[in-house]
Parts: sequence; C-alpha cells; structure tokens
Amino acid sequence: MGSGDGTGDSTEGQGYAADIDSIREAQARIAPYIHRTPVLSSTSIDAMVGKQLFFKCECFQKAGAFKIRGASNSIFALEDEQASKGVVTHSSGNHAAAVALAAKLRGIPAHIVIPRNAPACKVENVKRYGGHIIWSDASIESRESVCKRVQEETGAVLIHPFNDKYTISGQGTVSLELLEQVPEIDTIIVPISAEPKGADDSAQSKAAGKIITLASTNTIADGLRAFLGDLTWPVVRDLVNDVIVVDDTAIVDAMKMCYEILKVAVEPSGAIGLAAALSDEFKQSSAWHESSKIGIIVSGGNVDLGALWESLYKQ
Amino acid sequence: MGSGDGTGDSTEGQGYAADIDSIREAQARIAPYIHRTPVLSSTSIDAMVGKQLFFKCECFQKAGAFKIRGASNSIFALEDEQASKGVVTHSSGNHAAAVALAAKLRGIPAHIVIPRNAPACKVENVKRYGGHIIWSDASIESRESVCKRVQEETGAVLIHPFNDKYTISGQGTVSLELLEQVPEIDTIIVPISAEPKGADDSAQSKAAGKIITLASTNTIADGLRAFLGDLTWPVVRDLVNDVIVVDDTAIVDAMKMCYEILKVAVEPSGAIGLAAALSDEFKQSSAWHESSKIGIIVSGGNVDLGALWESLYKQ
Repeated sequence: MGSGDGTGDSTEGQGYAADIDSIREAQARIAPYIHRTPVLSSTSIDAMVGKQLFFKCECFQKAGAFKIRGASNSIFALEDEQASKGVVTHSSGNHAAAVALAAKLRGIPAHIVIPRNAPACKVENVKRYGGHIIWSDASIESRESVCKRVQEETGAVLIHPFNDKYTISGQGTVSLELLEQVPEIDTIIVPISAEPKGADDSAQSKAAGKIITLASTNTIADGLRAFLGDLTWPVVRDLVNDVIVVDDTAIVDAMKMCYEILKVAVEPSGAIGLAAALSDEFKQSSAWHESSKIGIIVSGGNVDLGALWESLYKQ
Repeated sequence: MGSGDGTGDSTEGQGYAADIDSIREAQARIAPYIHRTPVLSSTSIDAMVGKQLFFKCECFQKAGAFKIRGASNSIFALEDEQASKGVVTHSSGNHAAAVALAAKLRGIPAHIVIPRNAPACKVENVKRYGGHIIWSDASIESRESVCKRVQEETGAVLIHPFNDKYTISGQGTVSLELLEQVPEIDTIIVPISAEPKGADDSAQSKAAGKIITLASTNTIADGLRAFLGDLTWPVVRDLVNDVIVVDDTAIVDAMKMCYEILKVAVEPSGAIGLAAALSDEFKQSSAWHESSKIGIIVSGGNVDLGALWESLYKQ
C-alpha cells in the first residue's frame, strides 16, 4: 500500500529502478497505445468496507490488464535496430498478451514462451495479437532456458515480465493516472500490497528483510505466482507500507462482489485489492486508521468462465 | 434501431408520450441521482462485427441498470403531497430495484409487487434499497391486481414499469447521453430493436401493424418478457426502424463476449444488442449498409452467477 509503485517523491535519487521522472516519461511514451481506464465506485461496497473505494479498472485496459503499460514502455523504448529483431518473453499470462500486442503495434515479431499450465484464455489472448507461441514446462528454469534459446536463435530482445526498469516504470503509470483522476486518494492497494496465502513471498520477504523465493505456489490467483526480482525487491522493501495476505476464499468472495455489484468481470488476481480492503487484517492495521479514500487497482480481467457458460447454455 | 427512444426531431408535435423536450427535462431532473455511465469499445469486437461499436454501459448505472432513469424521473416529478403517500410498482426485475432506490433517495416508502419467479439477485437488489416487498403470482393479472390492492390500501402512486410518459422520457435520457458522448453514432441498438425469439412481441406487432400480446414467453432474457403498452407502441411502430430477433444461444454467445473481451458483467437482456449486431439478420438489413458507428445500449448487469461461484469455490 502507499506509494508502492515508487511514484512518491521519497524515491528520487535513491537508486530505485523507477522514479517519478521515469514513470512520467513512460506515461508520455505509452499514451498513444493504451486506454485511460475509468474509475468506478459503489456506495453499496463503500458501506460494506466502511471507507470510500475507487476502483481503477485495468480489466478494461488493452489486452485486458495493466501489463500493456510496462510492455509498451519497454518495446517502444527500443532502438529501431534492436527492435527489428523482435522481442521475446516468458509469461503464463497477461504480460504475454501485452508483449504480443505491443510488438504488433510496433510492427515487430513477438516470441512468447508459455508454460503448459497457463490458463487457456490467456493463451487465446496471445494468439489474438499474433504472438508466436513456444511451449515450455511450468518450472521457472524451463521457461528461462527456452527463452534464452529463442534469444540466441533470433537475436530478439528479452522483455522481462517484471524485473526491468522500463517494465516497472510503465506499470507505475497506473497509479499516476489514478491519482490524476482522483487526487484525494490517500492509500492505494495494488496486487502485491495484497497477496494470496498460497503465494505470499512478498509478505515473507518483508518480514525476513530479504528476498524469500517459495518452492511452490498454490492459489487461484494465477497472475500472482511470480517472485520478486533484484529490481522490484527494493521498491517493495522500502516503499510498500504493508502486505495483506488473504486466502483464496476471500479472493473469490471479492471477485463475486466485483461481478455482482460493480458489474466488472475481473480475474482472481484483479479482485485481491478488494479482498484486502474487506479483510480483518486491514482493519487492524495502522493504514486503516490513516485511510479514508482508497484506490484499488483492479489489475486484470482475463479469466476462464467455462462453468458459467456451460450452465447458461443448458437453460 | 434508429431514434428508437424518440429523441429525434421527427417525434416533435406528433403526440408521442415522450419527445426531445420531455427527455431533456428528464435529464436535468435526474442528473443528481444517476451516474453518467462510461462508453467502452473493443477493437477485437469491432473486427468481428465489421463495424465500430460503442457500448453504453448501463450495467454500471445505479441499481445496475438503466431503469433508475425512468424511475427517478417519475418519482422526482411527483408533487410533495402525492409523494408522501409512497409509490408502488409491479416488476420482476430492474425496475423494481430502481423504484426502491429512487424512493429511498426521495425519502418516501416504496411498495414493490414481485412475481414469485423473479431472479433472486433482482429481489436482493430491492431489499438492498429498502423496498417493501409484496409477492404475487407470475401472471400479469395477479401482479396488477395485487398492485391495485396496495394502491387502494396506502394511497401510493403507481410507477408503471414502462407505459408512463415520465418513465419513457427518463429511459430516453440514455440515448441522449450516449449521443453527447459519441456524437458521430449513426445507429443505436436498444433491447427492443433486438428481441429474444421466445418473447418477440414487438417484432410480431410491427409485422402485424398492431399490438400483439404473447400468451407466454420463453427466454433467458428475463428483462425482456414485458409487453407493449398503448404509450410505447406508437414509438416502436413509427420510430424504431427494425426489430432483430435472436435466439437464446446467440444471447449467451454475446454475453460471453461481453465478459471475456469487454470485461463487463452483463445480464442476458443487456447483451442482446451485441447479439443483434453479430446476427446474419442485421447483416442482411438495410440498416447494415447505412451504419458505420453503432451505439449498443448495455441495459443492465443484474444476473445470478451461482454456477460460476460454485465452480470457483471448489478449486
């Protein structure tokens, strides 16, 4: 929570991978390629939480998630010669589609290494934007080695899903934009100041004072299974006030509220900010007493709803 | 399609229940009580349809549907003395919640007659806004007779779900607002210029040149089971260019697209405009050739998603 994206003045000159200047640069660079997403609110949800919430709906973003911000910032920052060889990334999800789309917009090839356990709808999105798919095993080692091979064979530039200064600065634009839209916000909950119980490496890392990498993860929030990198860790360590851990049931409860009250189709990872706002842990934190207008980053909306369609087609 | 809400100049002075002046009056009257809902678009969906579509997302409206426009116009137009006795309506759905909410905003009682077969989530919405629920049988006769009894007992004013000039003018503001947001729109598809096959009384009425009332309806689109009234029929007869009929499978297909691509949680009736835009019938109509920028009224988002939550909690 707080200025978790490094948009605060306190980051300046301290050697973080992103600062307010790099985020402003990113905002100007990516403006032609992204949506300025709407901010929704609900008096019914406010009454349940006891605070005023502002939902920054990045599920309406290009390719269905905030990830296009980082991907387009990275890809449009490349020199022409570099760019002409294409880009490559490994991702099980929204970053993959974002890189495919940003590369398409720049007119260069995108090679996307996808682990075999990726959600079908996220693979569909990569195909929709014309990404060239290369399959890997689910392990991070397999993903990285396949990715390295593609780099060597094609000369493509790696667009890292998170541990890259252009990616980080691009993602940071979501908070900058939200604060332009609702300047009176005093707290922002992003999907890392809230974490699922089965993938709470950031919370554990903050408690330990060093990067903790989990042997395995187990959560419905497939977008939150990644780990901290050496560029993201200092930001999380120093600038995120708190990480609230919620279980998968709380995530589905929050998702349900997003669909049934906000009428927004979010993925589990996108609902975690609301789950955190509704949690007892948040109500017992010092942030609760210091907050009155809370921004929630609804990070994405790419989710397989197969069971729903099955039930409706049967009617 | 076309100026189906009577917002066109051609309605002036012809004795319709609503005209551009009454709709402008309504807009000013209800402005403090409703949301100006966002208009979303998707290049992926545009590519599928072959036209540019603008989705007016009334699922984000107060009480989850455009119906608050008509209900608040009717209720805030009442004289104080009339209003003090409260209001009553009979509705299986979104109008019921809208009347409950508008009455709450005016600080007067709302008696809502609801047929026993109404969707649970729509009944919940009525309760959320403090409406006083009175159950009836599903038939229109039962609904009307229970409603009449409540009127006699309480002196409450009837807020008719559709056949009322204030209601009609209030609903008309949705198109006026959309045209303010996207003035270049040339065609608007609302849920009546598109109808489900199992409740196609407007299409049949237009073909017959007189009001046809169906003996029964059978469609997943629970919000589109109502019939034409003597005030709505002239508007539909003269000002709606065409009514496209789609089957329930096409409605669920369109709903799926709204969730998976637009990321908007719509109810079946709210997805029917997109279903019509995707239909062969539309592509064979004269309107197809005359349209390039099409407004779609996504009328509401109140739907039971029980099967989805069941499947997700199990994971």
